[in-house]
Amino acid sequence: MGAAIDLNADLGEGFGRWSLTEDEALLHIVTSANVACGFHAGDPLTMRTVCSAAVEHGVRIGAQVGYRDLAGFGRRVIEYDPTELAADVLYQLAALDGIARASGGRVRYVKPHGALYNRAADDEVQAGAVVTAVVDYDRSLPVLCLSGSVLADVAAAAGLPVVGEAFVDRGYTAAGRLVPRSDPGALVVDADTVAARAVEFAVERATTAVDGTRIAVDAASLCVHGDSPTAVAVAERVRTALTRAGVVVAAFA
Amino acid sequence: MGAAIDLNADLGEGFGRWSLTEDEALLHIVTSANVACGFHAGDPLTMRTVCSAAVEHGVRIGAQVGYRDLAGFGRRVIEYDPTELAADVLYQLAALDGIARASGGRVRYVKPHGALYNRAADDEVQAGAVVTAVVDYDRSLPVLCLSGSVLADVAAAAGLPVVGEAFVDRGYTAAGRLVPRSDPGALVVDADTVAARAVEFAVERATTAVDGTRIAVDAASLCVHGDSPTAVAVAERVRTALTRAGVVVAAFA
Amino acid sequence: MGAAIDLNADLGEGFGRWSLTEDEALLHIVTSANVACGFHAGDPLTMRTVCSAAVEHGVRIGAQVGYRDLAGFGRRVIEYDPTELAADVLYQLAALDGIARASGGRVRYVKPHGALYNRAADDEVQAGAVVTAVVDYDRSLPVLCLSGSVLADVAAAAGLPVVGEAFVDRGYTAAGRLVPRSDPGALVVDADTVAARAVEFAVERATTAVDGTRIAVDAASLCVHGDSPTAVAVAERVRTALTRAGVVVAAFA
Amino acid sequence: MGAAIDLNADLGEGFGRWSLTEDEALLHIVTSANVACGFHAGDPLTMRTVCSAAVEHGVRIGAQVGYRDLAGFGRRVIEYDPTELAADVLYQLAALDGIARASGGRVRYVKPHGALYNRAADDEVQAGAVVTAVVDYDRSLPVLCLSGSVLADVAAAAGLPVVGEAFVDRGYTAAGRLVPRSDPGALVVDADTVAARAVEFAVERATTAVDGTRIAVDAASLCVHGDSPTAVAVAERVRTALTRAGVVVAAFA
Repeated sequence: MGAAIDLNADLGEGFGRWSLTEDEALLHIVTSANVACGFHAGDPLTMRTVCSAAVEHGVRIGAQVGYRDLAGFGRRVIEYDPTELAADVLYQLAALDGIARASGGRVRYVKPHGALYNRAADDEVQAGAVVTAVVDYDRSLPVLCLSGSVLADVAAAAGLPVVGEAFVDRGYTAAGRLVPRSDPGALVVDADTVAARAVEFAVERATTAVDGTRIAVDAASLCVHGDSPTAVAVAERVRTALTRAGVVVAAFA
Repeated sequence: MGAAIDLNADLGEGFGRWSLTEDEALLHIVTSANVACGFHAGDPLTMRTVCSAAVEHGVRIGAQVGYRDLAGFGRRVIEYDPTELAADVLYQLAALDGIARASGGRVRYVKPHGALYNRAADDEVQAGAVVTAVVDYDRSLPVLCLSGSVLADVAAAAGLPVVGEAFVDRGYTAAGRLVPRSDPGALVVDADTVAARAVEFAVERATTAVDGTRIAVDAASLCVHGDSPTAVAVAERVRTALTRAGVVVAAFA
Repeated sequence: MGAAIDLNADLGEGFGRWSLTEDEALLHIVTSANVACGFHAGDPLTMRTVCSAAVEHGVRIGAQVGYRDLAGFGRRVIEYDPTELAADVLYQLAALDGIARASGGRVRYVKPHGALYNRAADDEVQAGAVVTAVVDYDRSLPVLCLSGSVLADVAAAAGLPVVGEAFVDRGYTAAGRLVPRSDPGALVVDADTVAARAVEFAVERATTAVDGTRIAVDAASLCVHGDSPTAVAVAERVRTALTRAGVVVAAFA
Repeated sequence: MGAAIDLNADLGEGFGRWSLTEDEALLHIVTSANVACGFHAGDPLTMRTVCSAAVEHGVRIGAQVGYRDLAGFGRRVIEYDPTELAADVLYQLAALDGIARASGGRVRYVKPHGALYNRAADDEVQAGAVVTAVVDYDRSLPVLCLSGSVLADVAAAAGLPVVGEAFVDRGYTAAGRLVPRSDPGALVVDADTVAARAVEFAVERATTAVDGTRIAVDAASLCVHGDSPTAVAVAERVRTALTRAGVVVAAFA
């Protein structure tokens, strides 16, 4: 039997008059849409529009929860009290789920955004706050997170389904972490290389780290980007390469 | 059989470090809590705290939805596009319901706040936006609104349950509308008078307008205030007077 | 001696991660930059960047003050208490002026944005609030507004310099008002027509209304748009046509 | 000649409908008012009202600049990019100064609020961002900060006047730092003790740390609190004790 993989991307990352992601184009490519929930991006009407379009395209809806930080787009680390953070995550998750249901779908998974994603990958307190919110809302919802992260462990320990993801356009360290954006090898820009890596993640469940080490990466989903027409073209190339390699591209949820 | 009436009040109208309503005291008095949902007041942790306390006290939770206007406390009329307004209301309603459910309860009704309350009482477009959001979310949810208002008509026409309310501390015109706050007789401040009017609303389903006319008021709920210790004392007096008059104080939802 | 005219455009209408206007391209075309001040758009760093670039290009900086409404981009009419509106305008004006001065320039004029622009063109209360703020801050600052508007009258009565502007890509009624966006003839899209109208405003101080009437328009500045590469191309065409017609394009302030 | 000292307190820490500090009472006690500038608290109308009252009472106005964090009241540490932080501080400082000038006063000093205060006391990057903003706006403005802090050093190195302050109701470590709020001895609550410590700071320029060590504290200003009637009473006691001890209570700026 051939390999199968999910493709996820951030959608709906505009706010009011501003837009960022090529939502319509992405919905033809990905199988899972991480929809911004209003705290780092995503006003309610944008959420409604994206959810309706996702349902129409058969794309799964995930709650991309973030810090309350429109000005920083959720990319500034914030030292939240965990009780406040859990309440903020619960609020966002519930709001998107209500909108998704009104659009004929529902939230199928939760993925933290930006600085919360990175922080929850390493910090038990913030990972715990995210997990508390998901457990409080619906303990059958999977958490989509970095393979091998603290969040993956905390979510699993709480009995939540965990789905690991890999980044097709980011370099990896020998320890299986992403190369920091400030270091050489952080970004993979060549479209062919990105596509080849995607196939490798899906088929071999492994990649080559920046130092040449071969490492295992247990990912059931691949994250692609769509915040520019160029990014969309790369994502398209990834999907085509996967299909040609006989990989079934299908939602995990 | 004796008369029965619901008592409702706004709760959770703080934001972050700021608080406004005497939530704990009110939960001993009212049977329905209109909980602010984050747009005019009410951060997620405050919402969580109020919902937990309401469940503990057996008080019904209602979604007090408002304009996106923290600086104006939802009291400035805003010319919303109705599609945006419906999305904003749906978002708030779903967010609070998720928090209420995580707290062991659920949202039982919807009541607009401030300028949205007044606008939807007279304007079909904004009334329609509120109703669209409730229908989209859960068409079994009652709308709590001014007896005889446009919102009451629009909600009923859409098949939503409608619950009329009366204001114990506000003067009425002969047409059954509230006397504008800028006019004489707008506010009833004497606690005994307020309590007597509450009993009259509950038992006789009527009141005396500022010009002396006797008018019918079809209210299944009475709104009391709790934004100061004095207001709480008046609310307490209202509840005591109702009980002494043999009126059963019980939630409508 | 030949005619002279100012060209103004909105700049810096992004917020955090989001951008909207082609600021760099516009600074090569216009002589006055209406810089968003943080309430409808424009975070402080964007303001700083735009002000520095404007100073470098010799473009005048104006404060584009708006309602507190990021989600609605300042395009929703809000019923402000005039005292609050005046304070909000003063705050924005002072904040931008401080940033402009730190960048080697200073605020040279004030222009309301969006719904505030339209409202202040017809409503004495909101026009009065804007004027109060400008008078309180610096009574030598001109107000840039629609020729013949209520704001123009109120500002002049308060002793403020008033600069009228015309819109090169909008149709006019016989009464000298803009055709509402929902009506036919509201927008002029053909670049050559737009350019010809610009020359007509500058040289003849007049235009032809949608019903064929010839009307006088007393405008010392022309507003062009720059929220897309196409809009920038049209603005460029306007500037070229003015220069070819012998009109001196120069800032009014 | 007798000792002299300034008394400072946070004022105007409300937002819209919400208030927190007893502004009117504090203006009878303190000589310097740290006015919130809109990012952690303080809407423009509140700022206007506080500035007018401060001018009337002869109290100096300082800009209490904070993180952009209404929901967290500026008490959550945020990992700002220093360029963004400098722009945010400049924006707040300029906005308040404009309002203060419209009220007949002007900003006389800058004091960071909450998490920014604590962070800038230890972190060169954030301290540098605050200093950059002040230098860019007006290099004659003093920075009011914790005696011996990193911010004090960075500000002095940049040529800004530095004014050290002490906290009358906080315990000190032998190293001259505040005892963390979570540790024993963090807060001094007894009003007489607080007043005695105030006199000691002013007259002896020293205090006794929680471990009994005698330490020097070079403070030209004492910070008192006013977020409750009780806090105001303590502040009043401090002022009375200083006067009785022959200390001249006078603004530093």
